Amino acid sequence: MAEATIIALTTDFGLADPYVAAMKAVILAINPHTLIVDVSHQVRPQGIEQGAFLLEAVIPYFPPGTIHLAVVDPGVGSARRALALRTPVAILVGPDNGLLSAALPAHLRAQASPPTSRLPLPQGFQAVSLENHRYFRHPVSATFHGRDIFAPVAAYLSLGLSLAELGPSLESMLVLPPFRAVRQPDGSLGGRILHIDRFGNLITDVRQDDLSTGSISVEVAGRRIEGLSRTYGQGLIAYIGSFGHLEIALVGGDASRALGADIGTPLLVYPRAKG
Amino acid sequence: MAEATIIALTTDFGLADPYVAAMKAVILAINPHTLIVDVSHQVRPQGIEQGAFLLEAVIPYFPPGTIHLAVVDPGVGSARRALALRTPVAILVGPDNGLLSAALPAHLRAQASPPTSRLPLPQGFQAVSLENHRYFRHPVSATFHGRDIFAPVAAYLSLGLSLAELGPSLESMLVLPPFRAVRQPDGSLGGRILHIDRFGNLITDVRQDDLSTGSISVEVAGRRIEGLSRTYGQGLIAYIGSFGHLEIALVGGDASRALGADIGTPLLVYPRAKG
Amino acid sequence: MAEATIIALTTDFGLADPYVAAMKAVILAINPHTLIVDVSHQVRPQGIEQGAFLLEAVIPYFPPGTIHLAVVDPGVGSARRALALRTPVAILVGPDNGLLSAALPAHLRAQASPPTSRLPLPQGFQAVSLENHRYFRHPVSATFHGRDIFAPVAAYLSLGLSLAELGPSLESMLVLPPFRAVRQPDGSLGGRILHIDRFGNLITDVRQDDLSTGSISVEVAGRRIEGLSRTYGQGLIAYIGSFGHLEIALVGGDASRALGADIGTPLLVYPRAKG
Repeated sequence: MAEATIIALTTDFGLADPYVAAMKAVILAINPHTLIVDVSHQVRPQGIEQGAFLLEAVIPYFPPGTIHLAVVDPGVGSARRALALRTPVAILVGPDNGLLSAALPAHLRAQASPPTSRLPLPQGFQAVSLENHRYFRHPVSATFHGRDIFAPVAAYLSLGLSLAELGPSLESMLVLPPFRAVRQPDGSLGGRILHIDRFGNLITDVRQDDLSTGSISVEVAGRRIEGLSRTYGQGLIAYIGSFGHLEIALVGGDASRALGADIGTPLLVYPRAKG
Repeated sequence: MAEATIIALTTDFGLADPYVAAMKAVILAINPHTLIVDVSHQVRPQGIEQGAFLLEAVIPYFPPGTIHLAVVDPGVGSARRALALRTPVAILVGPDNGLLSAALPAHLRAQASPPTSRLPLPQGFQAVSLENHRYFRHPVSATFHGRDIFAPVAAYLSLGLSLAELGPSLESMLVLPPFRAVRQPDGSLGGRILHIDRFGNLITDVRQDDLSTGSISVEVAGRRIEGLSRTYGQGLIAYIGSFGHLEIALVGGDASRALGADIGTPLLVYPRAKG
Repeated sequence: MAEATIIALTTDFGLADPYVAAMKAVILAINPHTLIVDVSHQVRPQGIEQGAFLLEAVIPYFPPGTIHLAVVDPGVGSARRALALRTPVAILVGPDNGLLSAALPAHLRAQASPPTSRLPLPQGFQAVSLENHRYFRHPVSATFHGRDIFAPVAAYLSLGLSLAELGPSLESMLVLPPFRAVRQPDGSLGGRILHIDRFGNLITDVRQDDLSTGSISVEVAGRRIEGLSRTYGQGLIAYIGSFGHLEIALVGGDASRALGADIGTPLLVYPRAKG
């Protein structure tokens, strides 16, 4: 058996509506041998940053050549561009609103200012503007490019179509700043919550390699957590989670609810004096 | 590689319980090469009409020959018939309660009265009553025909079994009236909300081709919306959605919550005087 | 076409987070021909018993040889063992906390005391402790063995790896008592609610074969239900559900909400005097 190309879907469409099914149907009508994998359809409505966080988290685990079809698209129907982006390990298809920049290297994203900046693509990355209507589904609706542009383009790419067929090359795209806490003048790290998982754990933009080797102290939502736990212990704990981010959990409980913390809630990480 | 037959699932079973997994397991035990696609398992419990709306919306996007296994079945265990229906483009398997009539032509459905009418099948359509126990899973439970009748029948159909093997031909089946607003004596259209999507957008039974070419005015839940937007603008808007229905959205918000509108809420569409 | 091995997933990870997608990605990177089926990702957080109930319910419907990857793992990162278990019909991979004992025979589970007991494996069953790091993903995180240990091990098993390669044989594993009501001194059965489904139906640990042939009377949450219904009738009813358990439903409503009953709520079943 030849290996089927994977198309991985990340959207804010939910699973109750006809949207995701229509996208899958369009893909399978073009390439019935595609292997479709759902990453998440529960990105908060129009949560571009949260969608980018999920993409950044999962892309490294998929086999090389996976096509990520990502649609969190508040600007659908406006003049925002539609993109296909080839990186050294994956292809991404979606709107040009920062979402796909999850696949760009951190050093490039470090040049972006909030909410997004238009930045030139680094070497080894190729982007095209989706303009060749031959690979769209017709008629193209004003509000559902996921079904009419992104899904068919992803399906044709899974058949081996080259990016160049889809439209003109782009020199630049919209880029989100990296999900990284910022070093403050007093030496602390100023971060924020990127995602809250099903267990109520708070996933922050503080990364393992931002933390000095000494111990730390975390301030979030009016609470202070001392030290970094290595595994789940008791009470409110801070630890490095499975995707390399500092996380806050309430063991046996829901930290988000207990702290009243949500996506965007700020936190501060201090180096902790010894003794 | 030969192309796997798609079995697309539409149910009100949710994803937390063993029901959908048991159906998929039964299908794969009979035909391991089937490609199973979830349309939605979040039809409101026993929401036959909402399930039919979803089926009607997605069937046109699936490849010809797709088998739709649809189970919204408040009458399970009663005398209601079990059906397989072949249309010119798809096969449907499920209860005879109006759900599968989503695949019938609008001109036929226009002859039905609420909630359903038993109507003769049009030419090019074939239905059978599922009565051949050889293609059931045994024992057949009184409450879960999805697993014991519909799933195995769909799996055998995906192996190429002909409908005639499953039971006697039917001349008629239960049919839902079309999801279409009704022209009122004063020239307005009287419609209602069929579905509320994850974004809180209200999807109505007013269709694009019901609207005259002039401008319109929509009254819903005590609010009036003037004009038809072409893309997402600002505030409360009416527009033709991606499945050809008039939709109401609150840009950047949740129209359902803002208006207190739910499935079934009525609306009126008036032609708008110019000037 | 050769038949793809099924890997069936049962977790408490939900579908909104990157966890399930990362597990699927790891599996597909090792064996792109695996057929992944979701059983449920909505086990209540750390609900080992509820996860075991779902596994016990669905395992019999999957084709022989299916690999069940099950992760409800409050002890991740602690000293709890990681297991692969081969039964006469399936392979299970997951933590050694009672979850996988869903696949053990009832007569063995009857020797366990709550919450779990370490019991010797019966004949025809083989278990190994997952200790061969060669089949793990590296680095192994302290909090997500689903991605780093269980998913890759399941994927290698789907390629035909023998259990013996994964680590030392185990003579015993942690076992949950069977999900069965207990006969009381007065002849009644003392049971409890194991699962509440999407319809609000209460699925209990009273089994069809625990009930005498006569009629019964059920007491739950301060209400009494007389007799066993054969199909959905009216009001609050008790009946044998599609997985062989006594269930309580409110026809046209939500029994869980109406009774204020939850997982763990006790019930009593009395033989009913005739006449």
